[in-house]
Amino acid sequence: MDVQYLDKLKEIVGEDGYFEEYEDLLCYSYDATYLKGKVPSIALYPTSTEQVSEIMKIAYEEAIPVIARGAGTNIAGSFIPLDRNAIIVDLKRMNKIIEIDAENLTATVEAGVVTLDLMTAVEKVGLFYPPDPSSQKVSTIGGNVAVNAGGPRGAKYGNTLAYVLGLEVVLADGRILNTGSKCIKQSSGYNLAKLFVGTEGTLGIITKAILKLIPKPESKKTMVAIFDKLLDASQAVSNVIAKGIVPTTLELMDDKMIALVDQFKPTGFPKDAEAVLIIEVDGPASILDGQLEEIKQICMETGARATKIAKDAEEAEKIWEGRRSSYGVFTRASQNVLTEDITVPRTKFPVLVKKIKEIGEKYNVNLCVVAHAGDGNTHPAILADLRDEGEKERVEKALEEMALEGIRLGGTLSGEHGIGVVKKDFMLAEHGEVSLAVMESIKNVLDPKGILNPGKVWNKSDITNS
Amino acid sequence: MDVQYLDKLKEIVGEDGYFEEYEDLLCYSYDATYLKGKVPSIALYPTSTEQVSEIMKIAYEEAIPVIARGAGTNIAGSFIPLDRNAIIVDLKRMNKIIEIDAENLTATVEAGVVTLDLMTAVEKVGLFYPPDPSSQKVSTIGGNVAVNAGGPRGAKYGNTLAYVLGLEVVLADGRILNTGSKCIKQSSGYNLAKLFVGTEGTLGIITKAILKLIPKPESKKTMVAIFDKLLDASQAVSNVIAKGIVPTTLELMDDKMIALVDQFKPTGFPKDAEAVLIIEVDGPASILDGQLEEIKQICMETGARATKIAKDAEEAEKIWEGRRSSYGVFTRASQNVLTEDITVPRTKFPVLVKKIKEIGEKYNVNLCVVAHAGDGNTHPAILADLRDEGEKERVEKALEEMALEGIRLGGTLSGEHGIGVVKKDFMLAEHGEVSLAVMESIKNVLDPKGILNPGKVWNKSDITNS
Repeated sequence: MDVQYLDKLKEIVGEDGYFEEYEDLLCYSYDATYLKGKVPSIALYPTSTEQVSEIMKIAYEEAIPVIARGAGTNIAGSFIPLDRNAIIVDLKRMNKIIEIDAENLTATVEAGVVTLDLMTAVEKVGLFYPPDPSSQKVSTIGGNVAVNAGGPRGAKYGNTLAYVLGLEVVLADGRILNTGSKCIKQSSGYNLAKLFVGTEGTLGIITKAILKLIPKPESKKTMVAIFDKLLDASQAVSNVIAKGIVPTTLELMDDKMIALVDQFKPTGFPKDAEAVLIIEVDGPASILDGQLEEIKQICMETGARATKIAKDAEEAEKIWEGRRSSYGVFTRASQNVLTEDITVPRTKFPVLVKKIKEIGEKYNVNLCVVAHAGDGNTHPAILADLRDEGEKERVEKALEEMALEGIRLGGTLSGEHGIGVVKKDFMLAEHGEVSLAVMESIKNVLDPKGILNPGKVWNKSDITNS
Repeated sequence: MDVQYLDKLKEIVGEDGYFEEYEDLLCYSYDATYLKGKVPSIALYPTSTEQVSEIMKIAYEEAIPVIARGAGTNIAGSFIPLDRNAIIVDLKRMNKIIEIDAENLTATVEAGVVTLDLMTAVEKVGLFYPPDPSSQKVSTIGGNVAVNAGGPRGAKYGNTLAYVLGLEVVLADGRILNTGSKCIKQSSGYNLAKLFVGTEGTLGIITKAILKLIPKPESKKTMVAIFDKLLDASQAVSNVIAKGIVPTTLELMDDKMIALVDQFKPTGFPKDAEAVLIIEVDGPASILDGQLEEIKQICMETGARATKIAKDAEEAEKIWEGRRSSYGVFTRASQNVLTEDITVPRTKFPVLVKKIKEIGEKYNVNLCVVAHAGDGNTHPAILADLRDEGEKERVEKALEEMALEGIRLGGTLSGEHGIGVVKKDFMLAEHGEVSLAVMESIKNVLDPKGILNPGKVWNKSDITNS
C-alpha cells in the first residue's frame, strides 16, 4: 500500500486524531445491521471543517474512497466500506452546539452533535427540535441529515429535511460549500441544503447544519389503545388520519414485539392482545383532552378492547422506553435482525400490515411488526440466524416481497432509514430509470471520481440511458 | 428562420394549440415587472405531459430556448425570454385538479391549476393548502413550485417547498421524470422533487405535482395593531417571535402603503399612523383569544397606539383585501414598480426596515414598505418612472444597496419571488463561488444544451472555478 498519502492524512489530524490498527478499524466495517463491510485503511477524527477539507483534497488527488461516519447506528448498511482501502472520516469530535439562537428559533451545530444533546439543550430554553430517531441517545445530527432521519413524531412534524435551513458541506474535491441561512423562507437559487439531505454521504461530507426550531408545545399526553386484532389497530390508525386528526405520534407494536419488550422490561400490556397503539398528542393543554377523546372514540369504534391515558410524564416515559428499546431488544433476542422501513400513503397502512403478515407466514420467518403508523411507516423486523443458508434465503425472499408490495401500494422503500446497500436492488422498481439516471448524473458531476461512499443507494447497472 | 421545427411543434399541439402572431406573442415578453424581454417565436398550449415531452424533444434537437409559463405574475423577470427565438410552453390548459385524496391528505394537480382554485377545492372537504401568494387568484401551482412561492401564511406554514411531495417534470431532452409519492416521509435516494422546487424553470418543466395538505384549522382571528412609529411596529414583530409565538401571519404596511390602498378602497386606518400590523392566528377556537391577548400585550408594550380584533370573517376579509391589493395598487399609482423580496433572520427585521428607509431617503426614491414581517420577509417597493434616466440610476442604486444590506444581515435576496434576472447580479454576494459553481454544475448536467430558461438566476460570468 502507498503509505505516503496516509502520512499526509495523519499530519492533518495530528497524533491523537487517527486509528490505523486493524483491531481499531474493524468496528468501522460494521453498522447496526447484520452486514460486514471491508476494513478501512485508516480512521480519521478531524476537529474542524478545514481538516475535513484537507483530507478530501488528498483523497480526491489519490482517488481513494471516503466514508463519513456519525455514530454507526444506521440500519441500511449506508456507511460501511465496500472497498478495502477506504478512509473513514469520523465526525464525533466535531460535536459543538455552536449556537442556539432562541430569538430566531434556530440552532447551529457541528455534524457530530448527538441528537438527544441537541433536543435537551433546546428544550431548556423553551424550544423544540422535533426529529426523534429511536437512536437519539447516540445518533448524530450529521447522520440524521445524511439519511433524512425521522422518528415517531414524524407523523405530525416531518423528518429532518423539514428542519434543515442551511448546511456546510465539504465536497469531493475539498471545496467547502456553505449554503442556506437562518432565514425560514428561502427562494434564492437552487436549494442546495435540502438537496444534500438524505444523500447518505454520497455527495459531500456534512460538517455543520443550521436547523429550524419551533416553540416547545405547551403540553403533551400519551394514550395506549389495546387491540384484540392487529388489523383493527392498523385500521384505527388510518381512520384517525382520515378524520383530519394529526397526533404527534401514532405508534403500533404487534404481539411478538410486545412479548420481546416484556422480557427486557415489563410493559404491563395484556399478553393476549394482538397489538397496541401508542398515541401522543401535544399542543395547548386545553385542547389535548378533547383530541384524545376523539381518538379514543375512533379506536373503540374500530375494535379496541380498552384505552388508557398515562397519568403523568413518568408513566408516559415508561411506555416510550419500551417502544424505543425495540431495536436493542431485537438484537438481544436473535443472531441477526433485518428491519424494513417501507412507507405507504396512510390509507394503505392496513393493507400493507396485512400483506407483511401474510408474507412472513408464507416464508415462515420470525416476524415482528413495529410501525410509525401515523405516517404510514412500517418497520417489520425479521429475527433470524443468517448462518443457516435455508433461512437466509427465505428471509431475503420475504424482505424483497415486502419491499415490492410497498412500492405496489404507492409507497417508498424508506421513510427514514435510507437505502444504503440493503435496499438498493429495489430502487429501480420504486423510482424507474429516469429518476435513477438523474440521481446518477448529479452524483457524477459532484463526485466525478466516485470517491464519496461508493456503491450505495442504487446500482449503476440499473441505469441504461443516462 | 428555419420554420420546419415550428411546423413540427404546431403539429404536436394541434390547430388551436398555439399562437404565432406578433401581437399575440408580445405579452410573453413581459411578466408583472417593469421589464421587457424578447418576443418569442411561438407560444404553445399543450394539454398533456406527452405533448410537453414531444415539444422538448424537438427543442433539444434544435437547441432552441424554452420557457415554461404559468400566469405571468412573477415579479423577478424569471419567465421573460432573453432570446429572440424562444418557444413559450404555456401550461394554462393543463389545469385539472386530478385528485383530492382527503383520507391521505394529498392533492394531485396539473401545473396550470390556479392556486386559489386548489385552495378553495380542498377547503370544501375540510382540508387546507397553506401557501397563499398574493397573486393566488391568477397564479398557478406550477409557477408557485417553480419559484417556491410563499405568502403571508409562510410565517407559520412555510413556502410551497414544504408541501411538494412529488413532481412530474419534463426534462430538457424530453424524458419524463416522475419522482416522489403520496408518502409524507421519504428517504429513498436523492429527493428530486424538493430539488426542482424554486429552480425557476431552469432544470425542467413541471407538469404535475403531488401536494401535501393539512387539516383545516378550526378557527382563525384577525387583529390590527396601529403604530405611531414604523420602527416600533417592526420591533413588535421581532418581540412576538422571540417570545416563541408563531402567528399564522404577521404583516406590516407602512404609511405610504396605507395611503395608496386608501385611494383604491378605504382601509379605515388612521392617516397619521406610521405603520399597521395585520396579525392572524389560527387553530382550535378555544386558544385564539388567549394568543391574541398575548400578542396585543407585546404590541402595546412596544408602542402600539391601539389594537382592534376583526369582529367577523367579513371584516377580516376586508382587511386582507387591502393587503393583497398592494401590488395592483402600486402598478396603478406609478409608471413602474420595483419590488424587493429581501428576507432576514427574524430578529434582524427591525434593523433591515430602518436601513431600507434610510436608503430610500438617501437616494430620494418614492418608497413603500410592505412585509411578511413574521418571517423576516420584506417587500420594499419603489414607485418610479424609469423613463427618467436620473431617477432610474437612483432607483437601481437604492435596490442594490438594500439587497446587499439584507445579505450583510445574514439574509437572502429572495424569500418567495425567486431571482430571475432582477436579482441575479447579487447572487455571488449572497452565495459565494462554491455554491454558484455547484448550482451551475447541476444545471449543466440536467440541461447540457442550456435551453431551459437560459440566462436566469445567476450570471455564468460570476463562476470562475467550476
